[in-house]
Amino acid sequence: MKLTILGCNGALPAYGRFPSSQILDLGMELFLIDCGEGAQLQMGAYSVKPSRINNIFISHLHGDHYFGLVGFINSQGLLGRTKEMHIYATAKLKDIIAIQTDWPLPFEIIYHDLQDGVSEILIDNPKFQVRCFPLDHSVPTHGFLFTKKGRLRSLLPDKIQEFEIPKYFYSQLAEGKDYTKQDGTIVLNCEVTQSGKGNKTFAYCSDTGYFEDVLAAIFDVDTLYHEATYLENELDKAIARKHATAKQAATIAKKANAKKLIIGHYSSKYKSIDEHLIEAKEIFDNTELGVQGQVYEL
Amino acid sequence: MKLTILGCNGALPAYGRFPSSQILDLGMELFLIDCGEGAQLQMGAYSVKPSRINNIFISHLHGDHYFGLVGFINSQGLLGRTKEMHIYATAKLKDIIAIQTDWPLPFEIIYHDLQDGVSEILIDNPKFQVRCFPLDHSVPTHGFLFTKKGRLRSLLPDKIQEFEIPKYFYSQLAEGKDYTKQDGTIVLNCEVTQSGKGNKTFAYCSDTGYFEDVLAAIFDVDTLYHEATYLENELDKAIARKHATAKQAATIAKKANAKKLIIGHYSSKYKSIDEHLIEAKEIFDNTELGVQGQVYEL
Repeated sequence: MKLTILGCNGALPAYGRFPSSQILDLGMELFLIDCGEGAQLQMGAYSVKPSRINNIFISHLHGDHYFGLVGFINSQGLLGRTKEMHIYATAKLKDIIAIQTDWPLPFEIIYHDLQDGVSEILIDNPKFQVRCFPLDHSVPTHGFLFTKKGRLRSLLPDKIQEFEIPKYFYSQLAEGKDYTKQDGTIVLNCEVTQSGKGNKTFAYCSDTGYFEDVLAAIFDVDTLYHEATYLENELDKAIARKHATAKQAATIAKKANAKKLIIGHYSSKYKSIDEHLIEAKEIFDNTELGVQGQVYEL
Repeated sequence: MKLTILGCNGALPAYGRFPSSQILDLGMELFLIDCGEGAQLQMGAYSVKPSRINNIFISHLHGDHYFGLVGFINSQGLLGRTKEMHIYATAKLKDIIAIQTDWPLPFEIIYHDLQDGVSEILIDNPKFQVRCFPLDHSVPTHGFLFTKKGRLRSLLPDKIQEFEIPKYFYSQLAEGKDYTKQDGTIVLNCEVTQSGKGNKTFAYCSDTGYFEDVLAAIFDVDTLYHEATYLENELDKAIARKHATAKQAATIAKKANAKKLIIGHYSSKYKSIDEHLIEAKEIFDNTELGVQGQVYEL
C-alpha cells in the first residue's frame, strides 16, 4: 500500500496547504479518503489517475473534507466515465451532490450511508477490507481502517512458465488453488507459489478530539494517520473544538500499539509545523509529518 | 482598475490551470467574478485579500464557475467576517450554498437573482456601475460590464492643506462641490481639485457561443475578457457546446470597438495556448492571453 497526501491542512487553507484529502493505493485500485477543495487539481499535480478511483470515503460533512468532491464527480462525468462510483458518507451528502449535478452523469453513484456512532464493515473481499468506526467531533464523524489482505500467495515467475500455467488462472493460484492440466496432471500450488506477506493496515482518524474509544478499532495498526490540529499549549482550544493536539495524536498511536504515526490537519495558525513533529516524537518516536504531495510506503 | 486572473481554464482543470475566477480591483474594493474550485487557494497564492471582497458575480451555474464559492464563504465565516456579502447569480445558487453552510455564519449573504435573458443594472453609485447582460450558453448565463466612473475630480493635496479643508469633505470635493468655511468664505472646487480621468470599462463574457447581441452592451469597452475555449478548427465543437473560438472572440472584440481583448477559458485539450493568441491576433491585434496569476492594468 502507498499513501499520497493531496492536502492535510485544517479548516482554513493556508501557506499553500490544501484541505484534507488522501489517496490510498492498494495496487489494484485507489481509494479516495476525504476530498477537500482542490483535490482534483492536486491529483493532476501528483500524477494520480482519477479514473482508478472507485471508492470514496468521506469522514464527515465539514467543508474542508468534502468541498472538492462535486468537482471531482463533475469532471469524471465530463471525461465520460461509465464505471460506477461508491461513496461512503453521512446520508446528507447525497442531496448536496444531487443539487450540484443536475445534468445526466454518464455513470452511477452508489451511496452507502454511514450511521452516526456505528462501527461496521463497509467492504470485505478477498483482497481488502474497510471498516468505519466513530470519532469524537462536533458533527457525526467516522474514522476508517483499511486492511490489505496478505493471505494471497506470491507467484514464482520461472515455475509458472515451466509448468505452463495460463494467465487466467494466476489469481486462483494466488488464492492457493492447485492447477489441473488438460491431461489431468495436477500442479500443486506450493510448486509454483510461495507464502505471501501478512495483512497491512492503515487507519485514518480525522477529525477528532482525544478519543480512547478508537483504540479497540485500530489496535496493532501498521500506520495511523491522526489529526493534530494544535500543539499541546492550545489544548483548551482543541477540547472546545473537538480537535486533537500533536501530543494527543501520539498518545493514541502509542496506546494503540501502532507501528507508525503520520500527523496532519494542521491549524492555519501555524506557518511551520516542525513543532508538531517534535511534540509528537516525545511520546511516539516513529512519527512523520503529513506533507502534501508526499508518498508514504505503508 | 486591475484584473487578477485566479484561473481561466475550461470545464476540466488541466496542466495546473484552475477553473474560472477573477478579481477586479477597483481601488476601493475587490469584485470577485466567478469562483471556480480552488479560488480561495489562488487568492492566497496571489496575495488577494478575501476580506476586501463584498460583491460576487457568478456568470452561470456550471461547476467550473462556482464550485469554489462555498469554500470561500465557509472560510470567511471561520475568519469571523461580519460584513455582509452580496452575491449576484441565478436564483438556485442560494439553495446550493444553504445546504452546505448549515452552521450559523457570522455575516449575512444578500442574494441578487439574475433573471434569464435580462440585461439590467446591478449596482450604480457615484464610483462605479455594474450591468449584467445575457450570453448564449447551454444554461442561463450572464456577462457583466463593470464601469469605474471617472467623473470624480482629483484632489490637489497642497491646496487642500492650504485651504484647510476637513477630511470628511474630500468625497464631496471629488464630486465637484465647493466648500464653505465656518466664517462663510467659499472655497471654489476648481481651486483645490483638477479634472479626473474618464470612465474605465471592463466586460466579462464567459461562457458563450459567438453572440453578436452582446455588442450593444459592451460597445466601446476598454477591455473585454471573452472566452476562447477552442481554436477555429474545432468550430463544430464550439457551436455544439455553445462556446467560442479564439477567432470568434477576436471578432466580437473588433465589432465591439474594444480597445483590448483578453482571452481565456481554454479547453483542457490544449496543453499550449499559443495558437489561441496567434489566431485571435489575426483578427484583433491588441489581444492578450489570459494567464492565471497575471495582473492586468486596465
